[in-house]
Amino acid sequence: MNRRLVFTRSSCPITNSLDIIIGDKWTMLIVRDLVLGKERYQEFLSSPEKIATNILADRLKRLQSANIVVKQAYQYNPIRYKYNLTGKGKELRTVLQNLALWGLKNFPGTRTVPSARNQK
Amino acid sequence: MNRRLVFTRSSCPITNSLDIIIGDKWTMLIVRDLVLGKERYQEFLSSPEKIATNILADRLKRLQSANIVVKQAYQYNPIRYKYNLTGKGKELRTVLQNLALWGLKNFPGTRTVPSARNQK
Repeated sequence: MNRRLVFTRSSCPITNSLDIIIGDKWTMLIVRDLVLGKERYQEFLSSPEKIATNILADRLKRLQSANIVVKQAYQYNPIRYKYNLTGKGKELRTVLQNLALWGLKNFPGTRTVPSARNQK
Repeated sequence: MNRRLVFTRSSCPITNSLDIIIGDKWTMLIVRDLVLGKERYQEFLSSPEKIATNILADRLKRLQSANIVVKQAYQYNPIRYKYNLTGKGKELRTVLQNLALWGLKNFPGTRTVPSARNQK
Protein backbone atom coordinates (compact mmCIF):
# COMPACT_ATOMS: atom_id res chain seq x y z
CA MET A 1 0.00 0.00 0.00
CA ASN A 2 1.41 3.34 -0.99
CA ARG A 3 -0.69 5.97 0.72
CA ARG A 4 0.03 9.62 0.22
CA LEU A 5 0.16 11.26 3.62
CA VAL A 6 -0.39 14.92 4.31
CA PHE A 7 1.17 16.46 7.38
CA THR A 8 0.31 19.84 8.82
CA ARG A 9 3.87 20.97 9.57
CA SER A 10 6.30 18.20 8.61
CA SER A 11 6.71 14.43 8.56
CA CYS A 12 8.79 14.49 11.77
CA PRO A 13 7.29 12.11 14.37
CA ILE A 14 8.13 14.56 17.18
CA THR A 15 6.30 17.41 15.44
CA ASN A 16 3.21 15.27 14.89
CA SER A 17 3.23 14.02 18.49
CA LEU A 18 3.57 17.57 19.81
CA ASP A 19 0.74 18.82 17.62
CA ILE A 20 -1.65 16.16 18.89
CA ILE A 21 -0.86 15.77 22.55
CA ILE A 22 1.33 18.58 23.74
CA GLY A 23 0.19 21.47 21.60
CA ASP A 24 -1.51 23.16 24.53
CA LYS A 25 -1.10 23.56 28.26
CA TRP A 26 -3.81 21.08 29.27
CA THR A 27 -3.96 17.97 27.10
CA MET A 28 -0.93 16.24 28.59
CA LEU A 29 -2.15 16.93 32.13
CA ILE A 30 -5.39 15.07 31.40
CA VAL A 31 -3.29 12.18 30.09
CA ARG A 32 -1.27 12.38 33.32
CA ASP A 33 -4.48 12.15 35.36
CA LEU A 34 -5.63 9.16 33.31
CA VAL A 35 -2.27 7.43 33.84
CA LEU A 36 -2.70 8.10 37.57
CA GLY A 37 -6.07 6.32 37.51
CA LYS A 38 -8.54 9.20 37.30
CA GLU A 39 -11.59 8.33 35.19
CA ARG A 40 -14.39 10.78 35.88
CA TYR A 41 -15.11 14.41 35.13
CA GLN A 42 -15.10 15.46 38.77
CA GLU A 43 -11.78 13.72 39.34
CA PHE A 44 -10.11 15.68 36.51
CA LEU A 45 -11.65 18.92 37.80
CA SER A 46 -10.23 18.26 41.26
CA SER A 47 -6.59 18.27 40.05
CA PRO A 48 -4.43 21.07 41.47
CA GLU A 49 -4.14 22.89 38.12
CA LYS A 50 -7.89 23.66 38.23
CA ILE A 51 -8.79 23.03 34.61
CA ALA A 52 -11.98 24.84 33.47
CA THR A 53 -14.93 22.59 32.58
CA ASN A 54 -15.18 23.84 28.98
CA ILE A 55 -11.47 23.21 28.36
CA LEU A 56 -11.74 19.75 29.94
CA ALA A 57 -14.72 18.87 27.73
CA ASP A 58 -12.95 20.10 24.60
CA ARG A 59 -9.67 18.31 25.31
CA LEU A 60 -11.40 15.03 26.19
CA LYS A 61 -13.18 15.21 22.82
CA ARG A 62 -9.91 15.88 21.02
CA LEU A 63 -8.26 12.96 22.84
CA GLN A 64 -11.13 10.70 21.78
CA SER A 65 -10.79 11.86 18.16
CA ALA A 66 -7.09 11.04 18.30
CA ASN A 67 -7.88 7.55 19.65
CA ILE A 68 -5.96 8.24 22.85
CA VAL A 69 -8.99 8.19 25.15
CA VAL A 70 -12.15 6.08 25.15
CA LYS A 71 -15.42 7.17 26.80
CA GLN A 72 -17.76 4.56 28.29
CA ALA A 73 -21.00 4.71 30.27
CA TYR A 74 -20.56 3.22 33.74
CA GLN A 75 -24.06 4.03 35.04
CA TYR A 76 -27.54 4.60 33.61
CA ASN A 77 -30.43 6.72 35.01
CA PRO A 78 -28.83 9.14 35.16
CA ILE A 79 -26.18 8.22 32.60
CA ARG A 80 -22.60 8.75 33.74
CA TYR A 81 -19.42 8.34 31.74
CA LYS A 82 -15.88 7.40 32.53
CA TYR A 83 -12.75 7.98 30.48
CA ASN A 84 -9.83 5.62 30.01
CA LEU A 85 -6.65 5.51 27.96
CA THR A 86 -6.58 3.34 24.86
CA GLY A 87 -3.50 1.20 24.11
CA LYS A 88 -2.11 4.13 22.12
CA GLY A 89 -2.76 6.41 25.10
CA LYS A 90 -1.12 4.07 27.58
CA GLU A 91 2.06 4.17 25.49
CA LEU A 92 2.42 7.84 26.48
CA ARG A 93 3.26 6.76 30.03
CA THR A 94 6.98 6.58 29.18
CA VAL A 95 6.97 10.14 27.81
CA LEU A 96 5.26 11.35 31.00
CA GLN A 97 7.65 9.45 33.24
CA ASN A 98 10.62 11.07 31.50
CA LEU A 99 9.04 14.50 31.77
CA ALA A 100 8.43 13.89 35.48
CA LEU A 101 12.05 12.83 36.03
CA TRP A 102 13.34 15.89 34.18
CA GLY A 103 10.98 18.16 36.11
CA LEU A 104 11.84 16.65 39.50
CA LYS A 105 15.52 17.19 38.82
CA ASN A 106 15.25 20.70 37.40
CA PHE A 107 12.46 22.37 39.36
CA PRO A 108 13.30 22.23 43.06
CA GLY A 109 10.24 21.64 45.19
CA THR A 110 8.18 19.76 42.62
CA ARG A 111 6.50 16.55 43.77
CA THR A 112 4.81 13.86 41.73
CA VAL A 113 1.03 13.70 42.10
CA PRO A 114 -0.02 10.53 43.97
CA SER A 115 -1.87 7.84 42.03
CA ALA A 116 -5.65 8.14 42.24
CA ARG A 117 -5.80 4.33 42.47
CA ASN A 118 -4.41 4.39 46.00
CA GLN A 119 -7.11 6.81 47.11
CA LYS A 120 -10.10 4.78 45.97
CA MET B 1 17.39 25.35 53.69
CA ASN B 2 13.65 25.66 53.67
CA ARG B 3 12.77 27.80 50.67
CA ARG B 4 9.20 28.65 49.96
CA LEU B 5 8.55 27.89 46.32
CA VAL B 6 5.83 29.45 44.22
CA PHE B 7 4.49 27.53 41.26
CA THR B 8 2.32 28.99 38.52
CA ARG B 9 -0.12 26.09 38.26
CA SER B 10 0.92 23.32 40.68
CA SER B 11 3.96 21.62 42.18
CA CYS B 12 3.67 18.69 39.74
CA PRO B 13 7.00 18.17 37.89
CA ILE B 14 5.15 17.31 34.66
CA THR B 15 3.15 20.56 34.80
CA ASN B 16 6.28 22.62 35.36
CA SER B 17 8.16 20.86 32.57
CA LEU B 18 5.28 21.38 30.16
CA ASP B 19 5.02 25.05 31.05
CA ILE B 20 8.68 25.68 30.31
CA ILE B 21 9.48 23.54 27.34
CA ILE B 22 6.32 22.26 25.73
CA GLY B 23 3.89 25.07 26.35
CA ASP B 24 3.88 26.09 22.71
CA LYS B 25 4.21 24.53 19.28
CA TRP B 26 7.80 25.59 18.65
CA THR B 27 10.05 25.35 21.70
CA MET B 28 10.48 21.59 21.67
CA LEU B 29 11.25 21.60 17.93
CA ILE B 30 14.17 23.96 18.55
CA VAL B 31 15.38 21.57 21.26
CA ARG B 32 15.00 18.73 18.72
CA ASP B 33 17.14 20.67 16.22
CA LEU B 34 19.78 21.32 18.90
CA VAL B 35 19.83 17.61 19.82
CA LEU B 36 20.31 16.87 16.10
CA GLY B 37 23.38 19.13 16.02
CA LYS B 38 21.99 22.38 14.62
CA GLU B 39 23.67 25.45 16.13
CA ARG B 40 23.02 28.49 13.98
CA TYR B 41 20.07 30.71 13.19
CA GLN B 42 19.99 29.76 9.51
CA GLU B 43 20.07 26.06 10.40
CA PHE B 44 16.99 26.38 12.63
CA LEU B 45 15.21 28.42 9.94
CA SER B 46 15.91 25.69 7.36
CA SER B 47 13.96 23.03 9.29
CA PRO B 48 10.88 21.68 7.49
CA GLU B 49 8.41 23.30 9.92
CA LYS B 50 9.51 26.76 8.70
CA ILE B 51 9.63 28.63 11.99
CA ALA B 52 9.31 32.42 11.64
CA THR B 53 12.39 34.47 12.58
CA ASN B 54 10.61 36.44 15.33
CA ILE B 55 9.31 33.25 16.96
CA LEU B 56 12.75 31.65 16.73
CA ALA B 57 14.38 34.68 18.36
CA ASP B 58 11.79 34.75 21.14
CA ARG B 59 11.97 31.03 21.91
CA LEU B 60 15.79 30.99 21.90
CA LYS B 61 15.70 33.81 24.47
CA ARG B 62 13.20 31.90 26.61
CA LEU B 63 15.35 28.77 26.40
CA GLN B 64 18.37 30.79 27.52
CA SER B 65 16.40 32.23 30.44
CA ALA B 66 15.43 28.71 31.47
CA ASN B 67 19.10 27.62 31.31
CA ILE B 68 18.35 25.05 28.61
CA VAL B 69 20.32 26.81 25.86
CA VAL B 70 23.57 28.75 25.91
CA LYS B 71 24.53 31.36 23.28
CA GLN B 72 28.18 31.86 22.33
CA ALA B 73 30.00 33.97 19.76
CA TYR B 74 31.88 31.79 17.25
CA GLN B 75 33.06 34.60 14.99
CA TYR B 76 33.87 38.33 15.27
CA ASN B 77 33.71 41.07 12.57
CA PRO B 78 30.92 40.52 11.94
CA ILE B 79 29.91 38.85 15.19
CA ARG B 80 28.06 35.57 14.78
CA TYR B 81 26.49 33.41 17.47
CA LYS B 82 25.84 29.73 17.91
CA TYR B 83 23.43 28.02 20.27
CA ASN B 84 24.01 24.82 22.21
CA LEU B 85 22.17 22.81 24.83
CA THR B 86 23.30 23.07 28.43
CA GLY B 87 23.52 19.93 30.57
CA LYS B 88 19.92 20.51 31.63
CA GLY B 89 18.94 20.84 27.99
CA LYS B 90 20.76 17.67 26.96
CA GLU B 91 18.73 15.73 29.51
CA LEU B 92 15.64 16.40 27.38
CA ARG B 93 17.01 14.00 24.76
CA THR B 94 15.25 11.05 26.44
CA VAL B 95 11.89 12.85 26.39
CA LEU B 96 12.36 13.61 22.68
CA GLN B 97 13.40 10.06 21.89
CA ASN B 98 10.26 8.73 23.55
CA LEU B 99 8.09 11.24 21.70
CA ALA B 100 9.76 10.20 18.43
CA LEU B 101 9.12 6.50 19.13
CA TRP B 102 5.48 7.17 19.99
CA GLY B 103 5.04 9.34 16.90
CA LEU B 104 6.73 6.83 14.57
CA LYS B 105 4.42 4.12 15.82
CA ASN B 106 1.21 6.14 15.78
CA PHE B 107 1.51 8.43 12.76
CA PRO B 108 2.08 6.31 9.66
CA GLY B 109 4.49 7.96 7.24
CA THR B 110 6.46 9.97 9.77
CA ARG B 111 10.24 9.81 9.54
CA THR B 112 12.85 11.04 11.97
CA VAL B 113 14.81 14.09 10.83
CA PRO B 114 18.45 13.18 10.04
CA SER B 115 21.16 14.46 12.36
CA ALA B 116 22.71 17.74 11.21
CA ARG B 117 26.08 16.41 12.35
CA ASN B 118 26.21 13.95 9.45
CA GLN B 119 25.63 16.73 6.94
CA LYS B 120 28.48 18.99 8.01
